[in-house]
Amino acid sequence: MSSTPSRRLNIDNINPYIKNAKYAVRGELAVKSEEFRARLLKGGSNLPFSQVISANIGNPQQLDQKPITFFRQVLSLLENPALLQHEYVLLNQLGYKPDVIERAKWLLKEVGSVGAYSASNGVPAIRQSIASFLERRDGFPANQADIYLSAGASSGVNTLLHVICEHEKSGILVPIPQYPLYTASLSVLNATCVPYLLDESKNWGTDVDTIRESFEKATAEGVDVRAIVIINPGNPTGASLPEEDIRAVLDFASEKRLVVLADEVYQTNVFIGEFISFKRVLRQLQKEFPGKYDGVELASLHSVSKGMVGECGHRGGYFELVNFDPHVQAEIYKFVSIMLCAPVIGQCLVEMMVNPPKAGEPSFELYQKEYTSIYEGLKVRANALHKAFEQMEGVECGAPQGSMYLFPTINLPAKAAEAAAKEGRTADEFYCMRLLEATGVCVVPGSGFGQKEGSLHFRTTFLAPGTEWVGSIVKFHREFMDQYRD
Amino acid sequence: MSSTPSRRLNIDNINPYIKNAKYAVRGELAVKSEEFRARLLKGGSNLPFSQVISANIGNPQQLDQKPITFFRQVLSLLENPALLQHEYVLLNQLGYKPDVIERAKWLLKEVGSVGAYSASNGVPAIRQSIASFLERRDGFPANQADIYLSAGASSGVNTLLHVICEHEKSGILVPIPQYPLYTASLSVLNATCVPYLLDESKNWGTDVDTIRESFEKATAEGVDVRAIVIINPGNPTGASLPEEDIRAVLDFASEKRLVVLADEVYQTNVFIGEFISFKRVLRQLQKEFPGKYDGVELASLHSVSKGMVGECGHRGGYFELVNFDPHVQAEIYKFVSIMLCAPVIGQCLVEMMVNPPKAGEPSFELYQKEYTSIYEGLKVRANALHKAFEQMEGVECGAPQGSMYLFPTINLPAKAAEAAAKEGRTADEFYCMRLLEATGVCVVPGSGFGQKEGSLHFRTTFLAPGTEWVGSIVKFHREFMDQYRD
Repeated sequence: MSSTPSRRLNIDNINPYIKNAKYAVRGELAVKSEEFRARLLKGGSNLPFSQVISANIGNPQQLDQKPITFFRQVLSLLENPALLQHEYVLLNQLGYKPDVIERAKWLLKEVGSVGAYSASNGVPAIRQSIASFLERRDGFPANQADIYLSAGASSGVNTLLHVICEHEKSGILVPIPQYPLYTASLSVLNATCVPYLLDESKNWGTDVDTIRESFEKATAEGVDVRAIVIINPGNPTGASLPEEDIRAVLDFASEKRLVVLADEVYQTNVFIGEFISFKRVLRQLQKEFPGKYDGVELASLHSVSKGMVGECGHRGGYFELVNFDPHVQAEIYKFVSIMLCAPVIGQCLVEMMVNPPKAGEPSFELYQKEYTSIYEGLKVRANALHKAFEQMEGVECGAPQGSMYLFPTINLPAKAAEAAAKEGRTADEFYCMRLLEATGVCVVPGSGFGQKEGSLHFRTTFLAPGTEWVGSIVKFHREFMDQYRD
Repeated sequence: MSSTPSRRLNIDNINPYIKNAKYAVRGELAVKSEEFRARLLKGGSNLPFSQVISANIGNPQQLDQKPITFFRQVLSLLENPALLQHEYVLLNQLGYKPDVIERAKWLLKEVGSVGAYSASNGVPAIRQSIASFLERRDGFPANQADIYLSAGASSGVNTLLHVICEHEKSGILVPIPQYPLYTASLSVLNATCVPYLLDESKNWGTDVDTIRESFEKATAEGVDVRAIVIINPGNPTGASLPEEDIRAVLDFASEKRLVVLADEVYQTNVFIGEFISFKRVLRQLQKEFPGKYDGVELASLHSVSKGMVGECGHRGGYFELVNFDPHVQAEIYKFVSIMLCAPVIGQCLVEMMVNPPKAGEPSFELYQKEYTSIYEGLKVRANALHKAFEQMEGVECGAPQGSMYLFPTINLPAKAAEAAAKEGRTADEFYCMRLLEATGVCVVPGSGFGQKEGSLHFRTTFLAPGTEWVGSIVKFHREFMDQYRD
């Protein structure tokens, strides 16, 4: 007797922690939006829109954002160093400035071939360049040996959570709403996510009383809470934390002996106030209160994917460790060694991000112009979108502060919730799915980030150019409300 | 009363599975070799050698291997598409051929900006190009939907092991000796490595009786053995498997319902015989014995890091899934989504690796010349090193078959083992450390890959140019033996 042999792996016997992980930013809606995009490309789709707008993910160069010329000119020389034999052509016919050539030569000297593995923690000279940037930014010393290049900040977060979590009762305080990298990584690791709510009524700021409550509840349940994640400026909220919030968090971290993970990838996407790094505030506190904060371990992350750089596809990033035990750092080094090194071209982009052309250098003027124009463009788009949301029935949204996102509250009628339940969806998922089907605009339901019980949101980037797509959201919303109004 | 606050994390409370992981390729010896390199750079080091040779890692472009011109010219245009506005200059002054420009334009059309995230599983057109390559290579259909771009093969292995392992009793058969990525990843995952020995007396081939023994022993101990790793051509052994070995492994996998993980990153580094893919043999078996092999799941991996491409620093790779359950594939997709996507420039390199210039195309002649010269150069170096090993007392090494490594047996005197034990080292570690200190040549002790009890080896790449370093190994070995001979 023979039967068809069956596969070994099925949905019920693979890694359960991966099955449990959720990552809505590239979930069902995003997959569906890609199907729509493919149908539009083929033509004759009968879809009620002519393009898909991927507002689900902060992917600037997929939309309108142009790369910064200086960065890409240098990268072209790193990829093809043979071009450096034609300096005259580069300078006189191709518009390359002398500082482009200089930077490329310097990077090649330090890196060797960009096709070779670098040291596991990154090219030493690039780590030094990052350290110098941190010193300029914060006004306090930084050491290249504490810096680790990574494949975007995501891979840095993955490394840090991997090392910090000892067992399933190891707990990490994670803001809600949050970028789902954190909850997904903790799921995969089978460690405990300890959620703490951000305060929407205070521009999504951190509230230490709320954090304390979450900490104590988890501790009472036997969780060993050992770290706190802060995303500043916030994702998905856009919140840009004032110094007193940062001080309060560090104070709490010091009191409870929590490692602080500061996700600062949006540090240049700030529209209101100014970005203040956790490192600077920690060093300041250490100066003001000698000894008191010396136990606080801080890891802060940055990336080339966001800001005016927007080079997501290059997967460049780094993290800096402050006050980590050298033996723990050795384990981090070993862990990143297993994957060999971060992409070397991405490392070179990190170097240029932290050390761009300076005033007086030949490429400065164009760099400055491009940088400012991207910054201003994002601000204008954020405000235009915000203005549209203000006019929509049942939608509430604070003024854009930072990052690349707006995260409006949507108050939906009970009938919409009922219709959603019939489809087995939450009301915000239902709303976002209808929005996609009607307009081609892909956003992410608030449930993908976590939200206070009883509240509904969605996250949209404000990266897409033009106003047509904003108009289509407004129109959809009106019709949706008309259809489901109680 | 106040005391200095202590850090939260220390070596005894971080992730124990990371602590347990071992990765000798970038371990103590590699770190020490980098220190030596830094001392040499500063000058006046008093070291008995003038350069460090990193023969510990297959990193071709760190040593002598030049990138292939076609690849790098295209990449320079992808990084700086503005150059495409100067076709005349590119063609007439910079030596770019028309097919370079064409390929860059096509990739840019399909990819958009290389600074944007791609789809989580990679750019669709690049997946299609890989599928076409696999069809040409194997003579059987391949589907782009079953292909996943990855950051080098390492990240593909990490993904597959993550999904396959359900709990700590999930077992994966791993060859010994092996590339330590496998044991390290299984440590981190807290799953079970089920080692099976390769047969040094048969050119490091696979022996199914040995595999069966390991399988049965593990199963008797309650391990749920669910997959088998094959590295072909072998790392560190260099073995290139004959078709009958591959058939036997697939037969065993079918009998025991094992997922087959075929690490085929050295598929073009073959000096004796020809590379035969697991996919081709599986499809052939399915044709010959309808139904019998339909339960076998196969994942095969490839990379731009090795072969004549040698672009490790670009972190490009892919894996193809054969016969995986669509629900399991959906979980794989979700898992890779959490890290967003493989580096896009690396993806483009994968495309060019699988679809290089063809005969008759303008870049073909140079491509062919460069490719052949790298291939022949590696072969010459492998044979020269092998010849040196043959003359060394107590050293045994089979003829170079493939990959980038030789893995000689070293028979060391008992006195050397005693001296090693005094330092708390294994004899092979002791030997490799002395070699590094005396010559600046960094190799990896056999214990870093696993070896049959009582046997000692080291792994060295044959990538370094020249013969001086080989001579220094020979000299060191003679003196070492003189010092410790019984």
